[in-house]
Amino acid sequence: MVMVESLAERGENVVYRAISPSEFFYKNRDIAGFSSPARSLYMSIRELVENSLDAAEMGRILPEVLIELGEEDAERGVYRLRVVDNGVGVPGDKIPSAFATVLYGSKYGFKQSRGTFGLGGTMALLYGQITTNKPAKIMSSTDGKTLYIYELMIDVVENKPRIISSEKKPSPGGWRGTSVEFSLEADYPGARAKILDYIKHTAIVNPHATLTFIDSKGRLYHYPRMVEKVPEPPRETLPHPVGVDVEMMSRMLMETKARNLLTFLTTSFQKIGPKTAKEVLELAGLKPETSPRKLSHEQVTALVDAFKRYDKFRPPDPTPLSPVGKDFLEAGIRRIFNPDFVHVVQREPSSYSGHPFIVEAAVAYGGTIPVTETIMLFRFANKIPLLYDERADVAWKVVEEKIDWSNYKVPKPAPLAVFTSICSTKVPYKTVGKEAIADRPEIERELTMALRECGRNLKLYLSRIEKREAAAKRLSLYTKYLPMIAEFAAKTVGTSKPNIKPLLKKLGITESELEAAKTGSQQA
Amino acid sequence: MVMVESLAERGENVVYRAISPSEFFYKNRDIAGFSSPARSLYMSIRELVENSLDAAEMGRILPEVLIELGEEDAERGVYRLRVVDNGVGVPGDKIPSAFATVLYGSKYGFKQSRGTFGLGGTMALLYGQITTNKPAKIMSSTDGKTLYIYELMIDVVENKPRIISSEKKPSPGGWRGTSVEFSLEADYPGARAKILDYIKHTAIVNPHATLTFIDSKGRLYHYPRMVEKVPEPPRETLPHPVGVDVEMMSRMLMETKARNLLTFLTTSFQKIGPKTAKEVLELAGLKPETSPRKLSHEQVTALVDAFKRYDKFRPPDPTPLSPVGKDFLEAGIRRIFNPDFVHVVQREPSSYSGHPFIVEAAVAYGGTIPVTETIMLFRFANKIPLLYDERADVAWKVVEEKIDWSNYKVPKPAPLAVFTSICSTKVPYKTVGKEAIADRPEIERELTMALRECGRNLKLYLSRIEKREAAAKRLSLYTKYLPMIAEFAAKTVGTSKPNIKPLLKKLGITESELEAAKTGSQQA
Repeated sequence: MVMVESLAERGENVVYRAISPSEFFYKNRDIAGFSSPARSLYMSIRELVENSLDAAEMGRILPEVLIELGEEDAERGVYRLRVVDNGVGVPGDKIPSAFATVLYGSKYGFKQSRGTFGLGGTMALLYGQITTNKPAKIMSSTDGKTLYIYELMIDVVENKPRIISSEKKPSPGGWRGTSVEFSLEADYPGARAKILDYIKHTAIVNPHATLTFIDSKGRLYHYPRMVEKVPEPPRETLPHPVGVDVEMMSRMLMETKARNLLTFLTTSFQKIGPKTAKEVLELAGLKPETSPRKLSHEQVTALVDAFKRYDKFRPPDPTPLSPVGKDFLEAGIRRIFNPDFVHVVQREPSSYSGHPFIVEAAVAYGGTIPVTETIMLFRFANKIPLLYDERADVAWKVVEEKIDWSNYKVPKPAPLAVFTSICSTKVPYKTVGKEAIADRPEIERELTMALRECGRNLKLYLSRIEKREAAAKRLSLYTKYLPMIAEFAAKTVGTSKPNIKPLLKKLGITESELEAAKTGSQQA
Repeated sequence: MVMVESLAERGENVVYRAISPSEFFYKNRDIAGFSSPARSLYMSIRELVENSLDAAEMGRILPEVLIELGEEDAERGVYRLRVVDNGVGVPGDKIPSAFATVLYGSKYGFKQSRGTFGLGGTMALLYGQITTNKPAKIMSSTDGKTLYIYELMIDVVENKPRIISSEKKPSPGGWRGTSVEFSLEADYPGARAKILDYIKHTAIVNPHATLTFIDSKGRLYHYPRMVEKVPEPPRETLPHPVGVDVEMMSRMLMETKARNLLTFLTTSFQKIGPKTAKEVLELAGLKPETSPRKLSHEQVTALVDAFKRYDKFRPPDPTPLSPVGKDFLEAGIRRIFNPDFVHVVQREPSSYSGHPFIVEAAVAYGGTIPVTETIMLFRFANKIPLLYDERADVAWKVVEEKIDWSNYKVPKPAPLAVFTSICSTKVPYKTVGKEAIADRPEIERELTMALRECGRNLKLYLSRIEKREAAAKRLSLYTKYLPMIAEFAAKTVGTSKPNIKPLLKKLGITESELEAAKTGSQQA
């Protein structure tokens, strides 16, 4: 029996309403990583530092980022955070929207950047505002001549900036860059370890950047740049045809200046030349001379469908990508752990849903790596370290579940550290907080291949160790008995001082090895 | 040396722009769980079923939900999904916005509901649209008299519905409810196991609901309701003062009808009476008779600050919560695993950031639970099962890292299953895909307490087993030797047929136990 009675009849109302994006993220800051006062401080620093690095890289500038944390009200746990960079700056008229509007930014193109969601910086300021009710102060100059200074708050309901004050003056000393400063409720003692790790690891994968952190106790953490070369900045590219959906296609068809489909395809996508374009159009049952704006609903669907069925597209262009680099990764790993063995692999570019990506991976063994049951995993994406939610990440899945390290002679426990790095025009994060990467099959496969190659090299190294240890054992036998045998032999033939050197030489043992074996030090 | 050169001088432009919420989620569907064709189908079913259950519960209706999945184009992997419910329905004029606008909905209040983000249903339709370019068909009646039928698409750029067709007619057979139907690219074979688990587990924690799933091969999965009682629907409550931030306070001060602060406090929040209100106002340095609209910026901050410092608020009202219930949880567990032992704990209500919550937990041992090294964990939140991203969840952290099960005599491997359920007016999900719950300390603590209590009871049971097994061992010795001894004794005294019954009785062993021991079946 269906009871027919409307809510209205019972005098109850279901209230429907729309909320703005800032209200959405205000209400759900857990999903952007702003949960506890500790994690929110970590997230704030992270988002601003990543914006700073992007802003420098965009202008081919060697990044200099200064992070200052001051205590404002110890009793209430309120801090003042300031992040200053020497990047390209934000134009004066864009400052209010760029910093005080959720989902407004410069990061929505087809290129690699640390920021992804156009959200992080504003979330940090929003968090500061709702915990302290104070405006943020933004200063920026794009040309080293004019400096814009704003005090801003966010109108959460309207998702609009509220300008508290604004000023324009000559930039002191020709300074060009951006400074973001605001108050926030924070737990610095609780976040300190992660923040220091974050800065250290960021310095490792960005050896061209100088990072300086002055904390609320006045402690200075300074990572000067190790290389003077600015990496080739990631470039914006045309979308690759694989992974284009109906929504995107419709929009591109509307916006193109091309007069016919043939031109549209060859100028709007990478890896489509006239030959490919013609084949795709034939597959879609469309004529090359048709105007892009005159396609029916069904024809758009047919074109997208032809993209899906056409299996001869060349892989995406990897040039917009900027991986860490084998040398930099190895140097970084050596700097932290001084391990006995390191092997770094950089895979060939691959793609998922039309987005090119490159996987790099490394294993390190021994040195100061702690001997543990679980493997230490260090993850990076677009040159930023990922420190939270490790277990939800595709790299964890591969390292812990897909690879059986005992196949590579790795004992348990072992001093083993694994490093993974992914760079892509779009990293498929599972969360807005950019901590865990989704297990897209293409990425999982590349990670597995890279780590297997690392594993094989590690196995060679561990086998060598094993052999050397066996050799050392034999050697210690020789050490013990050879002199006695020699002495006995010498006595028998009447020689008083036996010379075992020729014998050792025959056996390929140097005297220093013999000495070392005598003193018991194992040579690995 | 700072290089001063603007991007514009180099002829490059940084393009700043705003994007709509639908565009944000369109570009980042991984964060809402819509990553692969398999997972997207799972998410679509899940979001629609949860909306259906909420819609029935809102109207105190015993839910009947029908899920139909049909194959539309086998070659392209396109399916047609339809979910029909007997809930309160959506008013005709709200249908376009409710289904085709991101961040529009009825779920933004202070009450427990399965939906949280006002996002899921629309995300499902958006996913269908971008993979098939077809409109969704929505039918709904709120009164059993008028039926509204819409064909809708989503204008992603504008975040607005595009109405393809609309119709209004008498509801056939007085039907009241909502039907949502759309096409989507999906991988049903890949998603099938999770979908079936999802439906089964949803049925378990919603024993008042009838769930029916007809899949694309025509297979029927039917879970009739087990109880005829509608659970008390969760009610909307006033916000609890703990956890109110400046943003929320400013808004409440603007919207209140109260003429002075004393009335404002006692009518806008739960657990604030006149006495508490006066104490809080004094702490904030504010006068009870001041008008709520006349507070300065600093005074609002002072009031929020007083809320934080005042430590005598009573805990939040748990009545808006609707937990699964110990009996239902136990019955559900018995239905799946028929275990030898079950223990269920329901904790007292607690709160985090002003949101009340209740934790329930259970352990089950033996039966058809597979014997594994890792404990099987089943998670529920607001009466929905959580099946993905287990390792990022606070429950996993507690079960795997905080509790040492060997303390409770649990062997390894063991046939052990752990169940956790949290209900709250706001579940702190880490992801928009609602799969993993954040490790808020208050929730972690309650889970730990609940599982320790389960553990202690499990230990008692396992100790009893241990004793019984020792007894059974002794018994099997008696079984083997007693008859022989008796026979020997009988022969000695010349009795031909020995009667051991009196002896057994003395030892407290029944004849059936003796038989059982002889045949080797262990009695646990």
